[in-house]
Amino acid sequence: MKIVVDAFGGDNAPKEIVEGALLSLQKHDDLEIILCGDKLTLEKLLENRYANRVTIEHAPDIISNDDTPTEAIRKKDNSSLVKAFDILKNNDDVIALVSAGSTGAILTGAIMKIGRIKGISRPALAPILPTKLPNKDVLLIDSGANVDCKPINLQHFALMGSAYYSILYGVENPKVGLLSNGVEEHKGNELTKEAFPLLKSSPINFIGNVEAREYMSGNIDVMVAEGFAGNVLLKSSEGAVLAVLSLLKRSIKSHFLSKLGAIFMSKTFKELKNRIDVLGKHGGSPFLGCKKLVMKNHGSSNRNNIASSIEQAILLYNNKLIQKIEKAIEVTNANS
Amino acid sequence: MKIVVDAFGGDNAPKEIVEGALLSLQKHDDLEIILCGDKLTLEKLLENRYANRVTIEHAPDIISNDDTPTEAIRKKDNSSLVKAFDILKNNDDVIALVSAGSTGAILTGAIMKIGRIKGISRPALAPILPTKLPNKDVLLIDSGANVDCKPINLQHFALMGSAYYSILYGVENPKVGLLSNGVEEHKGNELTKEAFPLLKSSPINFIGNVEAREYMSGNIDVMVAEGFAGNVLLKSSEGAVLAVLSLLKRSIKSHFLSKLGAIFMSKTFKELKNRIDVLGKHGGSPFLGCKKLVMKNHGSSNRNNIASSIEQAILLYNNKLIQKIEKAIEVTNANS
Repeated sequence: MKIVVDAFGGDNAPKEIVEGALLSLQKHDDLEIILCGDKLTLEKLLENRYANRVTIEHAPDIISNDDTPTEAIRKKDNSSLVKAFDILKNNDDVIALVSAGSTGAILTGAIMKIGRIKGISRPALAPILPTKLPNKDVLLIDSGANVDCKPINLQHFALMGSAYYSILYGVENPKVGLLSNGVEEHKGNELTKEAFPLLKSSPINFIGNVEAREYMSGNIDVMVAEGFAGNVLLKSSEGAVLAVLSLLKRSIKSHFLSKLGAIFMSKTFKELKNRIDVLGKHGGSPFLGCKKLVMKNHGSSNRNNIASSIEQAILLYNNKLIQKIEKAIEVTNANS
Repeated sequence: MKIVVDAFGGDNAPKEIVEGALLSLQKHDDLEIILCGDKLTLEKLLENRYANRVTIEHAPDIISNDDTPTEAIRKKDNSSLVKAFDILKNNDDVIALVSAGSTGAILTGAIMKIGRIKGISRPALAPILPTKLPNKDVLLIDSGANVDCKPINLQHFALMGSAYYSILYGVENPKVGLLSNGVEEHKGNELTKEAFPLLKSSPINFIGNVEAREYMSGNIDVMVAEGFAGNVLLKSSEGAVLAVLSLLKRSIKSHFLSKLGAIFMSKTFKELKNRIDVLGKHGGSPFLGCKKLVMKNHGSSNRNNIASSIEQAILLYNNKLIQKIEKAIEVTNANS
């Protein structure tokens, strides 16, 4: 199988992207990588390693965060990202695209070049977040790409999130909750009240309304949210975690005994840091609702993040994520 | 001046409520307290202390969290809370009501018995939250009472929140931000995009859109949010803080050196705990947009929380919070 990689997207491109791709070749004997980007630079970086399993697709242009996504996808035909999308689109044996480039351009490219799964009007990014339990993560869908959603969008988020979580963690019936301002069925705003019965009637393990406070409790697998609220959930948790760490640091610095204690506690602080960094574990997130696998990596991705993202793409492909989502949407639409 | 206290509302009623009221009498020579509740019980608790400055208003009934708020306010005439509302309503020299009882009943009573300030359709509760800076708090308005708001509601939240923060912290022009999913003016959902120009044209120090991640940064004084999103902000931050503390605790327990380190760090952990507990500092929150001061205390309030809440009511009264809000709404409505 083949995966196409945008070698010139991201803060650490192209070196870390290339090294990440090579790492994944080590692990998967049947994998081939297509690297999109400036040929000469890539050849130098590759130094002939894995020569028979790496193809370079020359693309001298780069899409940056300053480019308008739609413009860039339409006009920058020779950019590493557009080239990668064209390859994903035109080749059945290319199973996924991986990029750490501009989020806007990746999402726009996915919709314009690859297209949405039939019946889905709003694809979504679903980041993984840590919980307070050591080996338990939670998926948030949507995290901000889609604001002013309709109830049916939330139903699609639930179906896609459930299928994705199920494969990623090998869980049979992930617990799906609807973000609300109270647990009772009558709580919520107009949108969630209309979405509630749709989720209830869907072929998922719907556990009802969930308060924002509960999402890191470990009692829930998939949190469904309208994009604006989901964005608030994601960002405020990040902000709160950073604030606690900042308060801790400041206090440690100002007390001699605390400074000493912090040295003894280095293992704990390291554990905490690793636990909070879920991103590193999975590398990136697929753009759910798209016809093929488009993996969006964080701009700051290093080689390990890229390798994890490729790893994840293979897992999702082998477990037929796209087909499962297509099936779920089809069944639900037929029933409604 | 007189303040009426619902002596039978809250988990620690009546003892802690009574003791809290007496604490505030110690501090303010010109203060008189009216305690509502069962006469005999209150007399026993008072033991004749401050006899000339405490009046008991007999109210044998209690409103619990199980009562339907509207029903309770309408029918439980002899409850400590309804009695307190009647006293606040009928006496010009009673400047505020303090209760740690059922939130729903307090808010319903405030609207039904006291009424809204002219022009305000949706009063709001505005809790204070900690930031990562040691001496800087942030106000959130609305935190969940009002979902599916209109743009004008957000404008009112901004005006009320600004007036309240200004008095509470003695800050001339508090920085008011609008919760959104991006800082640029064009970011947001339909509601915030419509609210943005209203806030911009208001007589406040509007700093634009603010992401949820920033609200604990200390760079902002008043965060304006539609109730659903505000609730997510409040609850997810609580959840995230608790999750970090829980992960820390678990890790400390599992490493001997960390356990030792934690002992050295006890001062830091105590500081962190105090910093996070902003509630204790202010006791309660006023129900903003109401014609008189109605202070809602947390159900678990102890004597210090009650005393702080009374203290806050006196501060807000002396600095004419209600009149300032009335004025701001009048001016804004005249301009629109």
